[in-house]
Amino acid sequence: MAVYTEVGDDELVAFVGEYEIGEALAAKGIAEGIENTNYLLTTSGGPYILTLYEKRVDPADLPFFLGLMEHLAAGGIPCPVPVHGRDGAVLRELCGRPAAIVTFLSGMWPRRATPEHTAELGRALARLHLAGEGFELARANDLSVGAWRPLLERAGARADEVLSGLAAELAAELDVLEASWPDRLPAGVIHADLFPDNVFFQASRLTGLIDFYFACRDLFAYDIAVCLNAWCFEADGSFNVTKARRLLTAYREVRDFSAEEMAALPLLARGAAMRFLVTRLYDWLNTPADALVTKKDPLEYLAKLRFHQGVRGPGDYGLD
Amino acid sequence: MAVYTEVGDDELVAFVGEYEIGEALAAKGIAEGIENTNYLLTTSGGPYILTLYEKRVDPADLPFFLGLMEHLAAGGIPCPVPVHGRDGAVLRELCGRPAAIVTFLSGMWPRRATPEHTAELGRALARLHLAGEGFELARANDLSVGAWRPLLERAGARADEVLSGLAAELAAELDVLEASWPDRLPAGVIHADLFPDNVFFQASRLTGLIDFYFACRDLFAYDIAVCLNAWCFEADGSFNVTKARRLLTAYREVRDFSAEEMAALPLLARGAAMRFLVTRLYDWLNTPADALVTKKDPLEYLAKLRFHQGVRGPGDYGLD
Repeated sequence: MAVYTEVGDDELVAFVGEYEIGEALAAKGIAEGIENTNYLLTTSGGPYILTLYEKRVDPADLPFFLGLMEHLAAGGIPCPVPVHGRDGAVLRELCGRPAAIVTFLSGMWPRRATPEHTAELGRALARLHLAGEGFELARANDLSVGAWRPLLERAGARADEVLSGLAAELAAELDVLEASWPDRLPAGVIHADLFPDNVFFQASRLTGLIDFYFACRDLFAYDIAVCLNAWCFEADGSFNVTKARRLLTAYREVRDFSAEEMAALPLLARGAAMRFLVTRLYDWLNTPADALVTKKDPLEYLAKLRFHQGVRGPGDYGLD
Repeated sequence: MAVYTEVGDDELVAFVGEYEIGEALAAKGIAEGIENTNYLLTTSGGPYILTLYEKRVDPADLPFFLGLMEHLAAGGIPCPVPVHGRDGAVLRELCGRPAAIVTFLSGMWPRRATPEHTAELGRALARLHLAGEGFELARANDLSVGAWRPLLERAGARADEVLSGLAAELAAELDVLEASWPDRLPAGVIHADLFPDNVFFQASRLTGLIDFYFACRDLFAYDIAVCLNAWCFEADGSFNVTKARRLLTAYREVRDFSAEEMAALPLLARGAAMRFLVTRLYDWLNTPADALVTKKDPLEYLAKLRFHQGVRGPGDYGLD
């Protein structure tokens, strides 16, 4: 929720001049995107999104992210499409940072997700997984199971400042996750961060998927697990089995998943909870108090982790 | 630089339905406006700005602010125009807050002001002062000379945490300002907060004046003094006499000011520096470290105050 880089008007006009999208009329920094600076750019041709990639994004990954959006859009996924400049390039430099312009998507992210939303989400996620096929670039998930223990160790004893006993509880859970993490399930391109603020709706129709800057190649079912955590818990911490059932059922209508994927889902959901728990814990302990971002509570994800530890089978996720 | 209130999609659609501006397509929280929550609202009719007024704005002042924008726009000032709903009202409620939709202005605020910008600013400021004539609502400047000592006293001894000796220096300056503050100079509607981020340009042409939420009735020359401070100092603290000369000269081409106004300008500029110094000091000492706003350095305005204390005449502002 921040503008890290202020783009001057001269620089903006020169930058937009590299594209055939009309004349730059205005650019407003938008309060979205924790990782990057985003402007809603208004040109005589309409609205666009201008993104400046800040230091948490590895420039070497940008061809993957931008190429993926273009590939998915061509496959019918409603995602931002990178705009090619007159020279053909989608990536150039602005204010010393890599920068790109992508198309603007209508819709708003749901502040209160409903079962109708999660059904739409499930269908869109399955379509995304299918549409990723044929995309040729590779990017490993650098926030998967191998990354969690180093992040936890960087928090060290300070984890217990957040909750007494947290470091030991997470270390024990990591023992299980590392020993049991599946590696033979169906895999391909996943979004890996499909939280409600990355999914746009108009009325209850899904109109956009955004923010592909954690996308990578990993297990499809892990992406489903991320969504279960991000969409199916209520503010009071309770699991909404109706939302989960609608999400999973709608997904399976588009891409059915195997018995192995279903069996692995509780463990993957524990891992997906751990992934956000350890990154939030790290940020919680390391973000300066005067930073421009709002810190997110790691303990929200501890509660989700504990829920999935208690899951006995598909019925707990609303399936038969 | 913050979104204080998250507006849900259902609430947004219902709200926009009160207006004849087309169908709501998207709303992005924009990272501008320290006092309020602003969304760039995209409808099938084009872009608009949706503002939710947060707790620092007194709802009783809103008819003045919104009425003034409408009055000024009718007088040819390029400012946002409040949009009337089907019921004729410009002010209604959204998410428990007073809220209004205003027109969208093209242009960007200048990250690096030039003398061409300050000349455009001077002309626009004078036109604003003339266009305010005939506006019938009243609003006193509640951040004028009478408000500064109470603000300084609320900082108390902690002022010296910011700079040793600051409390005594400002108290002595307040003695001078309170004893000498003029009250017989030409007055009318002033903007009172015309910083660069409230002034839009395209190329070097001024295309918009925004953020009228400090506007009030006060001395015209005080408004000029606010602009001298906000536009004519360089990042290293030096006063740019060329920018001041262009600002003042352009202003006088539209509305000439009297010898009394010219003579009072150094004192008014000291007061204008004090106004932002004491509010920034108060915020500096009282904003929680985890707040969503970026704190502004009060000492920037101490340096400006000291500069104006040393001014001997119009020549120091670039005039003959």
